[in-house]
Amino acid sequence: MYRVDINCDMGESFGAYRMGEDEAILSFITSANIACGFHAGGPAVMRRTVNMALEKGVAMGAHPGLPDLEGFGRRNMDITPQEAYDMVVYQVGALYGFVKASGGQLQHVKPHGALYNMAAKSSALSEAIAEAVYKVDPELILFGLSGSELVKAGQRIGLRTANEVFADRTYQADGTLTSRREPNALITDTEEAVGQVIRMVKEKKVHTMQKQDINIQADTVCIHGDGAHALEFARTIRELLGQADVSVRAIGEK
Amino acid sequence: MYRVDINCDMGESFGAYRMGEDEAILSFITSANIACGFHAGGPAVMRRTVNMALEKGVAMGAHPGLPDLEGFGRRNMDITPQEAYDMVVYQVGALYGFVKASGGQLQHVKPHGALYNMAAKSSALSEAIAEAVYKVDPELILFGLSGSELVKAGQRIGLRTANEVFADRTYQADGTLTSRREPNALITDTEEAVGQVIRMVKEKKVHTMQKQDINIQADTVCIHGDGAHALEFARTIRELLGQADVSVRAIGEK
Amino acid sequence: MYRVDINCDMGESFGAYRMGEDEAILSFITSANIACGFHAGGPAVMRRTVNMALEKGVAMGAHPGLPDLEGFGRRNMDITPQEAYDMVVYQVGALYGFVKASGGQLQHVKPHGALYNMAAKSSALSEAIAEAVYKVDPELILFGLSGSELVKAGQRIGLRTANEVFADRTYQADGTLTSRREPNALITDTEEAVGQVIRMVKEKKVHTMQKQDINIQADTVCIHGDGAHALEFARTIRELLGQADVSVRAIGEK
Amino acid sequence: MYRVDINCDMGESFGAYRMGEDEAILSFITSANIACGFHAGGPAVMRRTVNMALEKGVAMGAHPGLPDLEGFGRRNMDITPQEAYDMVVYQVGALYGFVKASGGQLQHVKPHGALYNMAAKSSALSEAIAEAVYKVDPELILFGLSGSELVKAGQRIGLRTANEVFADRTYQADGTLTSRREPNALITDTEEAVGQVIRMVKEKKVHTMQKQDINIQADTVCIHGDGAHALEFARTIRELLGQADVSVRAIGEK
Repeated sequence: MYRVDINCDMGESFGAYRMGEDEAILSFITSANIACGFHAGGPAVMRRTVNMALEKGVAMGAHPGLPDLEGFGRRNMDITPQEAYDMVVYQVGALYGFVKASGGQLQHVKPHGALYNMAAKSSALSEAIAEAVYKVDPELILFGLSGSELVKAGQRIGLRTANEVFADRTYQADGTLTSRREPNALITDTEEAVGQVIRMVKEKKVHTMQKQDINIQADTVCIHGDGAHALEFARTIRELLGQADVSVRAIGEK
Repeated sequence: MYRVDINCDMGESFGAYRMGEDEAILSFITSANIACGFHAGGPAVMRRTVNMALEKGVAMGAHPGLPDLEGFGRRNMDITPQEAYDMVVYQVGALYGFVKASGGQLQHVKPHGALYNMAAKSSALSEAIAEAVYKVDPELILFGLSGSELVKAGQRIGLRTANEVFADRTYQADGTLTSRREPNALITDTEEAVGQVIRMVKEKKVHTMQKQDINIQADTVCIHGDGAHALEFARTIRELLGQADVSVRAIGEK
Repeated sequence: MYRVDINCDMGESFGAYRMGEDEAILSFITSANIACGFHAGGPAVMRRTVNMALEKGVAMGAHPGLPDLEGFGRRNMDITPQEAYDMVVYQVGALYGFVKASGGQLQHVKPHGALYNMAAKSSALSEAIAEAVYKVDPELILFGLSGSELVKAGQRIGLRTANEVFADRTYQADGTLTSRREPNALITDTEEAVGQVIRMVKEKKVHTMQKQDINIQADTVCIHGDGAHALEFARTIRELLGQADVSVRAIGEK
Repeated sequence: MYRVDINCDMGESFGAYRMGEDEAILSFITSANIACGFHAGGPAVMRRTVNMALEKGVAMGAHPGLPDLEGFGRRNMDITPQEAYDMVVYQVGALYGFVKASGGQLQHVKPHGALYNMAAKSSALSEAIAEAVYKVDPELILFGLSGSELVKAGQRIGLRTANEVFADRTYQADGTLTSRREPNALITDTEEAVGQVIRMVKEKKVHTMQKQDINIQADTVCIHGDGAHALEFARTIRELLGQADVSVRAIGEK
């Protein structure tokens, strides 16, 4: 039986600002990556998001980002591995506080935005992040771009890892995502996007922009929680995966 | 046998800015209140401070403050009890991350500055703070001004509490500290300050500005880590307490 | 001929977060209060908002707030007059940079949220704010709650001032707004709200919650830029004021 | 007659944190680069620093940095030219507010830390920064690394520029500073450092790490305001420049 996890970034509202359709999206996903206050979120949002996830039975993860609220954590910063370690311990700990206060359990950690992208390519940053996660709790599952340095660093230190794939992004021959600056970075057709995911899950292959197949491991698929079609896409992928006999379950579920 | 804990605020450096003689002061105290990034501190400082405290065998506590870095958490803010709850869970959790990563244990929580002072008088804020601490970990010890609303709220919810007294501050007949705006708020003579502490510990009494004694419970005494005489005062109070047969031990120590 | 200015808070988006229907609202107002980055806004938003206001011929003002992004500047903080002075100079200067860079002119300053409310009642804070505005540019017009300490302080220092009234808020016998915590704080009926404004402009009177009329000066009326009915209300008040022979012009216009 | 300006970064304290010997250093320099709140400083510090500089007759400049208080503006961030433009307009404007309130004049703008270093090599960032400065006030003088893209961009847009050299840093054959990660980046001998400056001013040459002379323009020399020897160095360079018949005057002085 095939299985996959569906994850989505959550809790990215801030103060008086609202972002994302968190409550509605939670009905279709199995793992929630909850922002921890550096790139988005904040104490009140974290509490509410943890409570919603718990109520809906969605597994919870920390989604630590760079300390760049104005840039939403999407601007690369020249941080040291030690700084990466520190900001991950801090943010995972902060979310852990809310999870513990709610009586729930923390399942995973997925770095956000520029931190995720920088880690994908840098073994030094990845090792620092993996060590931070491991030291806070060795039972946590580390999410990283499928086949990336982050997944490798997690495996080396002894963490359980989840190879993450993207439904609506195209891939390069080296397994990286096509840059958003390129014209064909996004897959806008829903069926095509879901088809790519199903093939990644079942055949462990993806067709790249270089017109060839490469091998890919798909443990969890990332969907987006904002934008006009977010909810509709979430509903559809969940439905089509079911029809394709792919069981959608949280990565940490037995 | 009499005993008392000596606590000091720590980890209040920030980025390129240095504050306090943390490393030296750690030799004389038994409980360190570590800033959690809202009024001071930050991920790197928290890691270093936790490691230093662990090395010196000093018990560690979270020192959450108002989100007011520029005001050092000393300006009252009109926050709701829910906001107080959220900011305490967040900050205690963040420090908990570093303590867990270091292999140590978190002993206590002591709110900082304006949050501490507002809680001392407000049962609503105190209940929110006490609930936050309790829900993150019911084994944590809550520090509050001796006899204050914060200590009472901690006791009501079932937390172990520590009544805190101040060596170098004068007291009012109602058990509150004389405001720093008043001329006689501070005790500048070291022997007089230590004498006040010894009397509070042994006789459970303090002489107030209204020239009368009141009852006071002294579980832990706060000393300061910056200023010209901080180190000298720390050394002296430790020594004189010993000579007075008062055992100085961390509040959580058996 | 009667006249009044219509002002609205603008530029309160932040980073990836959107707030308000600024572009659409600009068609109906004559003065824009532009957030300066402390409670909302930020460099990019300020530039875009200044450019939009300039294009639409709407007069521009600085809208300085407390340094509380997460609380949207709505939580009272115990700041000193000196701190109020400093934060107003800083924020007015920052907006002045964008206005100057755009080739436009700065018309006014209106404090935001808790800073506005605290100033309304405190002559010390109001004097500090008025002095800040005066020293940056004595030609600026200071907006304050009609009849408040802020308006008085502005007049004392020699600033031109604008008495501000609210269309959708009810008034108390002492000329203050009914607290939002009270049940009847808001006027939800559009015609009633506009009727109140027209009467304030033409008769210089408002009917209070205590069922009596008081005198009130209405130089500028504040409308809101977010919420479901913001645009519709803006369009209606503009139209009805015209029908009532009240000329709607920027306060600084000759 | 030879002349040179001596500049120093100032106003880098923050809230309760103190940095630098600003008041003492002001006696030896002719241009003060005042931090604007993004990497250091803040409203209160800016006001005090402007007042001190005015009192000592030292010319004032804005010292805008990246929005990275914890990293002191020293970590490269992947910002767009538009973001650089916006953050410079904002910060120059903010300082302009204090300068205007004090009755003084703003002489120059010098980007800080990572913003300065990134601009030195990037014509796109430099053009954005130069445009920001020009649009706020075309009379401002733009400081940049001698011969850098920032100086060139300033000249292209029509700004007066100042080529900045460093007393205590060694140079590479291409005119850049030796990276601080290299062993020989710093000149620790005071006489050697001052000698390098005198030669740059008089002969327009500097001896590089590659053992050859290159041409260099020295309009202003940067000294540091913190560290153990800051004051002593400031005093010495001022004295030795005088003995070498180099007149030390603010860049904007006639």
